[in-house]
Amino acid sequence: MAELNLLQKKILADGVIKSGDVLKVDSFLNHQIDVPFLSELGRQFKRLFANRPVNKILTIEASGIGVACLTAVHMGVPVLFAKKSAGSNMDADVYATEIKSFTHHNVNRVIVSKKYLNAADHVLIIDDFLANGCAIEGLMDLAGQAGATVEGVGICIEKGFQGGGDALRKKGVNLKSLAIIEKMDAGTGTIVFRE
Amino acid sequence: MAELNLLQKKILADGVIKSGDVLKVDSFLNHQIDVPFLSELGRQFKRLFANRPVNKILTIEASGIGVACLTAVHMGVPVLFAKKSAGSNMDADVYATEIKSFTHHNVNRVIVSKKYLNAADHVLIIDDFLANGCAIEGLMDLAGQAGATVEGVGICIEKGFQGGGDALRKKGVNLKSLAIIEKMDAGTGTIVFRE
Repeated sequence: MAELNLLQKKILADGVIKSGDVLKVDSFLNHQIDVPFLSELGRQFKRLFANRPVNKILTIEASGIGVACLTAVHMGVPVLFAKKSAGSNMDADVYATEIKSFTHHNVNRVIVSKKYLNAADHVLIIDDFLANGCAIEGLMDLAGQAGATVEGVGICIEKGFQGGGDALRKKGVNLKSLAIIEKMDAGTGTIVFRE
Repeated sequence: MAELNLLQKKILADGVIKSGDVLKVDSFLNHQIDVPFLSELGRQFKRLFANRPVNKILTIEASGIGVACLTAVHMGVPVLFAKKSAGSNMDADVYATEIKSFTHHNVNRVIVSKKYLNAADHVLIIDDFLANGCAIEGLMDLAGQAGATVEGVGICIEKGFQGGGDALRKKGVNLKSLAIIEKMDAGTGTIVFRE
């Protein structure tokens, strides 16, 4: 068995498995944010996509913003985060798509301003979780509408057993996940990572 | 007249005044995020609160998360972001408050998990905007429920003419804003900063 990496160790130490295939990592990833730790994950994303001409990181509010910013700070690029609803001071001139949420069992209209995404952009999509892949497909759809090139997708925790990641890989998406969970069991509290 | 600081210059260069006292800074602050620039603002917050024993940064989703993380990375502390609704994998065991939104004309129930905020915490509250002060009062309420000490409040852009910031200062809050707008005029496109 390969040695566990930084994020895999952190998941085993601090993650809590709940029924319904929910992995709670809100002590360091998506409620409380362990910023020095996520900054280290950001360095790993920078290395993983070092051969790609990335000029912008694309993510989605809210829990993607932290890891996206802490990756962008190492890469020296801006972050653009897709918004889940049109606020009163949001331009009407937006790309829009619909994303189903696995966690919240709802559908969100998600938008980015046309001003900040265009055919000259080479984006790296970053998110905290990938389960069925709907959020990433939505972000790729927004990039596609803008004519932007998706250079890669960087995920902290992929739920491999839900299949979304492998479906994206089959389509040729340059997807890299720092930890892929093959199996987890709320009863025994065990997690098996893909090697 | 004093020389303009980094953020004031950026607001004049890239901000757009809209009717209804709306200042759009979504090119660098709250949609697209100019990460290297916000990291510099984070350094300024670190200097401004250097004399306080801060062990955690508290902010609110979504647009506070970027600047909070890019401040925390310099201070070496975690970020805790308050969530606007209870998701299905959120603990029931939360502190909750209600925050009125100036921008969206609605009221949000805002929560933090009791696990991540307690009487031992010395928090720095960070947010992108301060207008009527409702978001900051809500975050201070959450900290108060936890028995945590609020060491300070750091704001990027304060709309001084709405009075929320001065009301907080009158109550003794250690509030520092990087740019305070005294007046702005959508017709002429002019902005006057407090010196």
